[in-house]
Order: sequence, then C-alpha cells, then structure tokens
Amino acid sequence: MQAYSSLFTILNQAIDQQQVSLGKAKPQEMYEPMSYILGLGGKRVRPLLTLVGCDLFDANPKEAIHAALAVELFHNFSLIHDDILDNAPLRRGNTTVHEKWNHNIALLSGDGMMVKAFEVLAKSNKVHVPQLLNLFSKTGLEVCEGQQYDMNFETQDNVSVENYIHMITYKTAVLLGCSLQMGAICAGASEHSQQHLYEFGKHVGIAFQILDDVLDVYANDEKFGKQVGGDIISNKKTFMLLDAFELANEAQTKELNNLLFSKEISNSEKVKQVTALYNTLGVKELAIEEANKHTDIALKHLEELEANTAKKNSLKEFALHLLNREV
Amino acid sequence: MQAYSSLFTILNQAIDQQQVSLGKAKPQEMYEPMSYILGLGGKRVRPLLTLVGCDLFDANPKEAIHAALAVELFHNFSLIHDDILDNAPLRRGNTTVHEKWNHNIALLSGDGMMVKAFEVLAKSNKVHVPQLLNLFSKTGLEVCEGQQYDMNFETQDNVSVENYIHMITYKTAVLLGCSLQMGAICAGASEHSQQHLYEFGKHVGIAFQILDDVLDVYANDEKFGKQVGGDIISNKKTFMLLDAFELANEAQTKELNNLLFSKEISNSEKVKQVTALYNTLGVKELAIEEANKHTDIALKHLEELEANTAKKNSLKEFALHLLNREV
Repeated sequence: MQAYSSLFTILNQAIDQQQVSLGKAKPQEMYEPMSYILGLGGKRVRPLLTLVGCDLFDANPKEAIHAALAVELFHNFSLIHDDILDNAPLRRGNTTVHEKWNHNIALLSGDGMMVKAFEVLAKSNKVHVPQLLNLFSKTGLEVCEGQQYDMNFETQDNVSVENYIHMITYKTAVLLGCSLQMGAICAGASEHSQQHLYEFGKHVGIAFQILDDVLDVYANDEKFGKQVGGDIISNKKTFMLLDAFELANEAQTKELNNLLFSKEISNSEKVKQVTALYNTLGVKELAIEEANKHTDIALKHLEELEANTAKKNSLKEFALHLLNREV
Repeated sequence: MQAYSSLFTILNQAIDQQQVSLGKAKPQEMYEPMSYILGLGGKRVRPLLTLVGCDLFDANPKEAIHAALAVELFHNFSLIHDDILDNAPLRRGNTTVHEKWNHNIALLSGDGMMVKAFEVLAKSNKVHVPQLLNLFSKTGLEVCEGQQYDMNFETQDNVSVENYIHMITYKTAVLLGCSLQMGAICAGASEHSQQHLYEFGKHVGIAFQILDDVLDVYANDEKFGKQVGGDIISNKKTFMLLDAFELANEAQTKELNNLLFSKEISNSEKVKQVTALYNTLGVKELAIEEANKHTDIALKHLEELEANTAKKNSLKEFALHLLNREV
C-alpha cells in the first residue's frame, strides 16, 4: 500500500529498534525469544493500523508509536503462548519458541513479553494513558477469552455458527478494532469517531477470519503459502464446517461425520470429499456472503466517523486490499 | 495486627467480591481457576501493603483498592505460572491449578489473570493511572526476570551470594516495594516519600526472603507448616548454601559436594549433615546478619519519609512482626 509507506517506515524502524534492544536485555534466556519472534516478521498489520488510526485524524503518527509497539508485543506474546497450547512446531515457517528453546522458556518469555507490552504502553502521552490502558487491557482479556473458546470448541459437539462468530470476534477481531482505536485515542479523536473506528476494525477482522478459513480450503496452493485443506484434516470447526452441519440433511450429516472421524481415509481423500460436500451445500458462497456482510458493516462505520475524506478512502482501500485475497 | 484490622476488612471484602465475580465469569474454563487460586487465601500481605501505603499519608485507603487488587491478581498469576515451571503438585496445601485442571488451562488462566490485573488497575483514579502503570509494569517485568534468574541458578555452577541477593530482590522484594508505593501514589504522596517507601518495602522483602531460607532449615517443624530441610533436599541455592561454599575450606567443599550429589545418602541424613556443616561454618548467623542489615536499611528509609509518626510506627511494627518468625 503506497499510501502507508511512510507509516510503515516509522513502524519498522521502531520495531527493529525494539527487537535489537530486547536482543541485548538480560536475562538473555527470557529476552532472546522475544527478540526472535519479533524478528520473524509477519505483516505487522495491527501496529500499522494504530499509526493509521492516529494519522487519520491528522495527528503526528509518532504520537501513537508506543501504542503500536504495545499491540505488536501483545500479539507476539499471544503467538508464543498459542503455539505452546497448540503444540505447534512452526510459526511463520520457523521453529516455534517452545521448540527452539523449551516450554518453560516459552512460558516465561511470553509472560515477560505481555508485561513488556504494558510497560511500553506506559510511555505514551500521559493524557491518553488511562483510556489506552482501559481499552488495551479489556481487549487483551477478550483475546484470552477467544483463545479459551477456541480450545473449548475442539471437544465441544454443539458449536453453532453464532458461537464461532463470537469466538473469532474475541480471538482475532477485537485486537484489530483496538489497534485502530488506540491510534485515534493518541490523536485525541472524539469518542464518537473512536467507537466507529473500533467497530470498523472489528468487522474487518471478522470478515478477514472467515475468508481466511475459506482460503484454507479453496486457495491456490502456491500463493497461499501453507498446505490447503489443513483445517479439514484437523477437523477445525470453521464457519464452513459448522454451516455444513447446519445445512446437511440426514445422509449428508452421516457422510460428513464419517469423513471427519474415519481412520481409514487418507488426508488427501478427506480434503477432496469434504470439499465436494461443501460445494454441494454451497457453504463457500455462504461464508463469502457472511464476510461481505461484515465488510459492509465495517464500511458503514468508516463513513460515520469524522475524518479527512482522502484518508478515509485510503483506509477503505487498505481494508479491501487485506480482504481481497483471491478466494 | 490490630492496627490494620479495618484495612484488612476493606481488603478481604474486595478480594472476596473479586473472587465471586471471577467464579461467575465466562468462559468458565479460564476464569474458574483464577477464582480458585484467589480463594486459597494466603496472607494477602502485598495488597494490604498497598492500602497501608495509602493510609500512611492520611488518604482514604479505598482510593488504593484497585491497585491493591491488581497486586494480588498479579501475584496469583505468578503463582499459577511458577507452579507450572516448578512442576509443583501443591500450593498452600491444595492442588495446583495445572494439576487440578491441566497445563493448557493453567497457562491461559494465568495469562488472563495477569491481563485482569492491568484491567483492574485501569479503574484507579485517572490522575494516578500513568504513574501506577509505569511502576506496576516495570515491577512485573522485574518479577519475571527474577523468576528467570532463579531458573538459571538450577543449572548454573558459579552463583555468588551477590547474584542470589539480586535474584530475590527481583523475584520477591520489588513487588513489596511496588505494593507500598502504589498505595502512596494513590494517596498523592510526594515523589520523595514514595521512593523511600518503595525502598523500605524492597529491603523488608530481601530480609524476609533470607529469613525464609533460614526457616526452611532451622524452623520448628510444626510451626513452619512445611517440611524442614526441603531446600537442602532439593539443593536449592539459598543464601546459606552459597555462603557455605564461599566460606568452606577444601575439605568442607568436597564434603558439601558429596552431600549434595551423592545418591546413596538418605534425605534425612543429608539434611542432618548439611545442617551440621552450616553450624560449623556459622552461615545461619551470617544469614541473619544479612537480613538484619536489610531490615536496618528499610527502617532508615521509613524514617526519611514524611508521614504521620504513629502510622509510621505501626508500619515498622508490622514489618518487624513479619520478619520476627522465631528463627
């Protein structure tokens, strides 16, 4: 995104600096993994949104740099701990912290990284700290709750599409809303604009996650960068799977259950047959429809807020760019 | 402590209320363990100190109630995660969270409890939130660092007494200093008084931890409430053990190493012989001397700060009561 290249420059410089200082901090055993995971890159969308949220109201984006760093540190803490919870070997194509070091190191450096996020947030302009802390801690708690709901789903039989939307809202979407609103807070934007910006980010986040699940099944293998069908293989309760169960007739329900729990079917055959059932039931289209619904809600909120029109258009364009990933 | 009974009433009411509300919160899997560990009691010294720190400057102690709760929540988060790290089966005589539920639940509810601490802190008077957040997050990071140093000591050969003091300062003492200072911040005390109060709490904490190690060896079994000699059995690098290595002659060093690493000696014999060597070297007295040194430093800081003399005396009495545990 050309419009955000100068914001990205500011952001990357700050994150790189943070990474270097974490890499030097003692005790090394606790700080080195923080530096390591920050260095794995990622798209850095969340902290960028914080700077965007500040710039949107014509304030100097550097006013929001501590909040942006806090968001990125928090997000990376959650990755370290989620990877322990999921027993994941890889993160962004690299060894996860608990695999590269061990579980205790990953637990404690994750803890430290979360506290570090709050420590960095405290460096923001004092006028804004109370509201920033309020929003950031509330959101952090919701992210943990979302992670817990996601874990619960693994062994829960009666998960509804509504439960799923609630889970991804907490696990993923609220942090996008929070990232943007923190920028707006740093810019001194009105409460009204802040709220609309938060809702914009939240609904973009919901749409993003639904489409991410669609991509997992329907993406072009090479462009996607990870194995297509991974969610199907692991029986992950995505929007499409839950919707499929809600729409399936008796025979289709039986077939779906067979596919999920049979130990005789190969992974590739499982992906192929579940996808075929998804096609019959039209759940891909329904998922895209649901994502579009949330995108529309997001854009309505964007319209409502009072900011520079050109900058609002850039943000709209950026969101659509994030969401338009060739499904 | 009679002087603090009304503060204890305020505190216990607030913690009990917090415990009930956590017990009702959803998702239950994440919040129930928080409620459980809060309900195990403990002495609640840290949050009491926050109310004391506020009361000391003649402010309404309720001004500091959110800060006090934040301290107790943070402390309990650290217990949940430390018990995972130490693979401990019991906490305050009850099953630890990871044993009662499982590792993933303990990890995530610990995370949630830490974020909750910050969320509760955010409810403090806005005027004080920036300074509270600054102190609390800095201290939280130090507590994590102290835990990491403690873990490092397990496999580290050349731990000095100085390293040990640094470790307990971070792992234990700074949170006591922080607890008191947060109360002072909520009371609007001067920076000068705040600093002296922090140093008072920190040095009381150091003295407390050194004496705790002495008690582990020399306490009256029944009064102590846990197995005497546990630190010796587990080769824990306490002040006395490190001091013993620093003072031992060649033969004594060899004997000590034999006692620590021999697989043929029974636990009770190990405790007996290591204690005998401690007695020969006089490390108990040296440890008490070191603790007294820190108590004296603490009391000098207490003298320096500007507050109601009667209340300063009560705090002095309370600290000496905490430290005077019949070694």
